This record gives sequence, structure tokens and C-alpha cells, in this order.
Amino acid sequence: MNQVIDLLKNHRSIRKFTPESVSKEKLNTIIQAAGSAATSNNIQAYSVINITDNDNRKKLAELAGGQTWVEKSPVFLVFCADLKRSEDVCHYEQKEMAAGYTEQFIVATVDVTLAAENAMVAAESLGLGGVFIGGIRNNPEKVCQLLKMPDYVYPIFGMCLGYPDEKPEQKPRLPVEVTLMEDYYSEDTSYLGKYNEICRDYYQNRTNNSRYDTWTSQISAMMSSPSRTHMKDFLEKKGFGTL
Amino acid sequence: MNQVIDLLKNHRSIRKFTPESVSKEKLNTIIQAAGSAATSNNIQAYSVINITDNDNRKKLAELAGGQTWVEKSPVFLVFCADLKRSEDVCHYEQKEMAAGYTEQFIVATVDVTLAAENAMVAAESLGLGGVFIGGIRNNPEKVCQLLKMPDYVYPIFGMCLGYPDEKPEQKPRLPVEVTLMEDYYSEDTSYLGKYNEICRDYYQNRTNNSRYDTWTSQISAMMSSPSRTHMKDFLEKKGFGTL
Repeated sequence: MNQVIDLLKNHRSIRKFTPESVSKEKLNTIIQAAGSAATSNNIQAYSVINITDNDNRKKLAELAGGQTWVEKSPVFLVFCADLKRSEDVCHYEQKEMAAGYTEQFIVATVDVTLAAENAMVAAESLGLGGVFIGGIRNNPEKVCQLLKMPDYVYPIFGMCLGYPDEKPEQKPRLPVEVTLMEDYYSEDTSYLGKYNEICRDYYQNRTNNSRYDTWTSQISAMMSSPSRTHMKDFLEKKGFGTL
Repeated sequence: MNQVIDLLKNHRSIRKFTPESVSKEKLNTIIQAAGSAATSNNIQAYSVINITDNDNRKKLAELAGGQTWVEKSPVFLVFCADLKRSEDVCHYEQKEMAAGYTEQFIVATVDVTLAAENAMVAAESLGLGGVFIGGIRNNPEKVCQLLKMPDYVYPIFGMCLGYPDEKPEQKPRLPVEVTLMEDYYSEDTSYLGKYNEICRDYYQNRTNNSRYDTWTSQISAMMSSPSRTHMKDFLEKKGFGTL
């Protein structure tokens, strides 16, 4: 359709990078593009921490569940949902922040995610590749301590960036006919069998027929188990979302 | 830097559109680009509802706080964080979803937001413009009823799209030196005064010196007041985030 659409449709997670470093200028361009995304009422409730310290890289890679690319990627960014800025702003105006609303948690989570997706797209347009690291939510308190994050800031995901040294196949995604509904939410689930076939074929082709796997088997295994059960307490302690 | 970066940096909210309609093909391309964004463990926890019904458009415009562009834009999409799909998948595999984790709420909120930002970028690359409508969280239960959303689905924001019939100025954003930190979270707030000056100049230039406003005055007014206090109960009722 056009180059931008092609770029978006070609996204894949990159975890293996060439040794080439990413210039400061490029990183600044990426973060400027991130900051150009929409933001709820101009609140800009996000911050990005560029981790250059090798020891902390190693620690973050371990905290994220042993993801070596967190240690080894040319750039590793930690994206933070940030309402501390709003608290600073209230303080500056001699007001008190009305903190702890779930709505504010949503606003900050959305703001940082919009910015991060722009960062990924900008990076890819510069020939870089990368991957989101949700694993930093495995041990969010330790990540906060390590990176000296105050209350009203939480690390939502990391992002590895660098020049790709792999080109993984793209996993087949749900077709538009399933994700785009008309006028009402559709509870039709008849797509599951067919999508399973597509995913199974994908895995079989990739593994020379040795792997038999489907979308429903993968997702159901994950979603029928408890999920980072520490998050609620962690977020409440940080000032997010008890109201 | 390149066309993609230019596109990202040129984002502005568009609320006024020409009467030209958006073709089905373009909308499909936009949603396909949305679905190419990163997704946590391939869960793809989002759905998009294209609202074509005029009565419902009118109702949604009112529910969002009287935003006429919700009624009048050529396209209005409602983006949903969707764990119903995961419940369907568990059911398909005769498992039970371990529901209600805050972590799952984050996963779905992030997934839908990554997809939505791709949708906005794709739309802009096709010559369209648009605006996110957080106002649908003003009355989320009514939105759910109107669009027949079941449990485990919540409407996070809407998106108006169409061919722009305005070119608003861009509000100055926080500079990269503020949003990008090195190795540790920075609690430095010395930027506030200078950024206020930039924002004040922007408003004065736009209004022929009649409006005197700063970032801290705007954001502090908003953040020192309670914020959509219904969201926590609403989300808990829908199956999101009590654990």
C-alpha cells in the first residue's frame, strides 16, 4: 500500500543484534518520535530510561527471567508509566495530586504504550529492530530499586534495540475479519479451528514437522494459570489504582 | 530523518473532516497494520468495533461528553481490551481461565494500545487524520451495553478517522532531554519553568496574546481532582484486575 504500511506489517521481534552501536542522534530521534504520539490531555505520563551500565544490564536480564538479549542488545530502554511528573506539577502549583485512581493508571499505561509503539516504528524505519520485554514485570520492585524509581512510577516493559542479526518468520496473526467487528461485539468463535490450522502449519513448516502446536493450546495453557500475582500489591504500593 | 519519522513527528489530533468516506479496503489495511504490532505472548488481546450505525454514533458522542466529531467523523472505531478471546480459547481447550489478575489487565491494555497506535500511524500514512477518544470511559457501562460487550472486554478508547479538514498547530511536547533518562530515574524538576514558558508562548501566539496558560496550571488542575471514579468498580465487574 505504501512504505509505512509495509514497515508496520513487517514487524517482528528481534533478539539477536550485530555489534554495531546505535548513535546518540538516532536514539534521540527515536525518543522524539515516541514523544509525538497522542497523549491523554497532554499529560505525557511516561519516561524512558536508557540503561548503559553493564552491571545493571546483567541484573535486569536476570530479573526479566534470564533474557540474555537484555544484557547484550546495543540499546536497552525501560519504559515507565509516570505520574510522578504530575505530582511534581501539582507541587509546583502548590496543589496536592488526587492520586490512586484506576483511571490515572489507565491514562499512564496508555500514554507510555503509545509512545513506545512509536519508538519501535521509528527504530524500524532507521533499520533497527527490537523486542518488547514484559519480563521486567517479573520483579518490578527490584527493577524500581535498581533504577531508583520513586512512587507514582512503574516499569511497564523494556525494549531491546539494535541492528538485526536475524530475520525470524512472522507468526500468523488473527485475520482482520476476526479482529474488526461491525457495530456490535461479536461473540462468534468459529474462527478458532481455522486459525489453529494456520498456526499449526506455521509451526510444522518451521520445525520440519517436529512441532505440533496450535494457538488455543498455547494461549489456554498460559491463561489458565495465575499471572504475575504480585502486580496488584506492587502497583498499590507505588500509588497506582486503589480508587 | 526519513519519511516515517517525519510522519510520526507530524502527528496532531484531527477532529474536523472532509465528507469524503474511507474505503473498506483502507480500513482493512489500517486494521491489518494494527494487528501487526507486538503482542504479549501472541495473546492478541484486543478487538476493534467499527461503528456505522448513526443512532449509536449519536449516543456514543453524547456518552463521550458531547464530542460531535464522534458522531460526524467518516469512521469511528471503538478499541477494546479483550480477554474474552482468551476465555473462548480456554473453553475450546476445556480449561478454565484463571481470570481477574491485574497483570492480565495490563497485558490487554498494552496489547490494544500498541495496535491502536499502529492504526493511527497507518491511517496517517494513507492521508487520513484522527483523534483518540478517551471520553468513552466517561460512561463505560453504557458503552458496553450499547455495543453488546460481554465480560472480559472493556472499551479503552475510541478513534475518529477521516480526511483532515483542519491543520491544528502542534502543542510543544516535553523535550527528549526530559523524557529520556540515563541509567536511573531522574527526579530533577528544573525543566518545569522553562517548559511552562514554551507552552505559554505557544498559547499566546495562537490566541493573539489573549490566553495565558502554562503546562503546570493545566495538568495540576486536572490531576488535583478525582478522575473517573467509576473505573475501578466497572473493571472489577467486567472481570479485570481484582487479583
